Amino acid sequence: MIVDLNDDNDGDDHVSPESQGVIGGCVYLMILFCFIPIQFSQYKSSSTGLLSICCMLFLGFADDVLNLRWRVKLLLPTLASLPLLLVYALTYDNTTIIVPKPFRSSFGFSIDLGLVYYVYLSLLAVFCTNAINILAGINGLEAGQSFLICLSIMAYNVAELFRATDHYHSHVFSLNMMLPFLAVTGALLHHNWYPARIFVGDTFCYFAGMTFAVVGILGHFSKTMLLFFLPQIFNFLYSCPQLFHFLPCPRHRLPK
Amino acid sequence: MIVDLNDDNDGDDHVSPESQGVIGGCVYLMILFCFIPIQFSQYKSSSTGLLSICCMLFLGFADDVLNLRWRVKLLLPTLASLPLLLVYALTYDNTTIIVPKPFRSSFGFSIDLGLVYYVYLSLLAVFCTNAINILAGINGLEAGQSFLICLSIMAYNVAELFRATDHYHSHVFSLNMMLPFLAVTGALLHHNWYPARIFVGDTFCYFAGMTFAVVGILGHFSKTMLLFFLPQIFNFLYSCPQLFHFLPCPRHRLPK
Repeated sequence: MIVDLNDDNDGDDHVSPESQGVIGGCVYLMILFCFIPIQFSQYKSSSTGLLSICCMLFLGFADDVLNLRWRVKLLLPTLASLPLLLVYALTYDNTTIIVPKPFRSSFGFSIDLGLVYYVYLSLLAVFCTNAINILAGINGLEAGQSFLICLSIMAYNVAELFRATDHYHSHVFSLNMMLPFLAVTGALLHHNWYPARIFVGDTFCYFAGMTFAVVGILGHFSKTMLLFFLPQIFNFLYSCPQLFHFLPCPRHRLPK
Repeated sequence: MIVDLNDDNDGDDHVSPESQGVIGGCVYLMILFCFIPIQFSQYKSSSTGLLSICCMLFLGFADDVLNLRWRVKLLLPTLASLPLLLVYALTYDNTTIIVPKPFRSSFGFSIDLGLVYYVYLSLLAVFCTNAINILAGINGLEAGQSFLICLSIMAYNVAELFRATDHYHSHVFSLNMMLPFLAVTGALLHHNWYPARIFVGDTFCYFAGMTFAVVGILGHFSKTMLLFFLPQIFNFLYSCPQLFHFLPCPRHRLPK
């Protein structure tokens, strides 16, 4: 069973290899492996974040190669985020959220969500990985939106570092994860830009989504993270009739 | 790029899917993910072991699908074992070995090998992953030898636990990793037994080898581990003329 990544060659000169996100993902993991001596000493749970990303990259590649069914696709991020959530529960077990100012009169300053918070974190991982995958179909869109989300997160981290809050380590950790991600996504975007010479595949969408989920969860800004996903949330809501089969859904929805 | 794992179907009724080690590997990882709450609290570096195994499973599957070159194959376990070695260095940094009794008069009771020890650990990971792969070619051989090595390790762990040494936690950790491995390998062996209904592929060989390396390194019995690999070491030495191209080497060497 040997696969040529160029096997969609339909006879013309322009051959675009698919699933090239796997190269970006591997390079990203290798870079972060090299930084383990720095990260691990400060942040014991960071290797669990890498475990989730590696697991998602593997499952994404398996999906690209074996073309798994839609229901299995929803299960994969849940499985891959399992170690992340378990270690989060063991290390922090902080399920209290600060209530936004307009609602404080009715709910108080903070609420302990308990198990509901873990359900939310699990759904966040599923959402992040699939949201990028759903908003696709034009050259450079997967890598482009990931590039922009990554830039937003880094801007937020830098702003918070200048404000000198008490979450200093979380934002340094996040920058640590996002800088190499920006680099590999930039490289993929360069080659995926119209006219695309490579396609990043589901592999990249899952890998990017799980990286954002890991950074948001271990960096303790999973709610702020959702703000950077506003275009994806809008697209998800807009696509709901097709996703839940109220309307027919082709394999790749192109813009009308 | 969609692959049917049955694509080696040459027209007869007997179709054997390849690379089924990927299923065993995924099931194994899922089982160990569920035990993270128990393992992680006692053994912070265990998630790094899982990271190495997951990374190796991913790279092994990529090798099966993309048919990587021989030189790259040697590089993969080195990369996958990188987090393991780094965390070993950060957590224990114990590079002292006890000299075997016959040599104590000339070398003393123990030697601190320093960096040489890490080179040895890295080579151990490369050896374990490839040794199982080289000794293959008959139905059930890959899964069979892994099953036997796993049984030997478990017997050793149980014996050491009864002797009540000071490495209690290491052997409990090892049993924790080996019991689910025995289960998935047993299941694969059942289906891979002659006449094979499935093939386990490079995926399984790499996954099994890295699991043994992780257990040996984090369980602090990497030297004892090599004793369980004696048949593989013999086969490696016996295959050296072919491996290093002094003699021609076909893709699959069958027994004469």
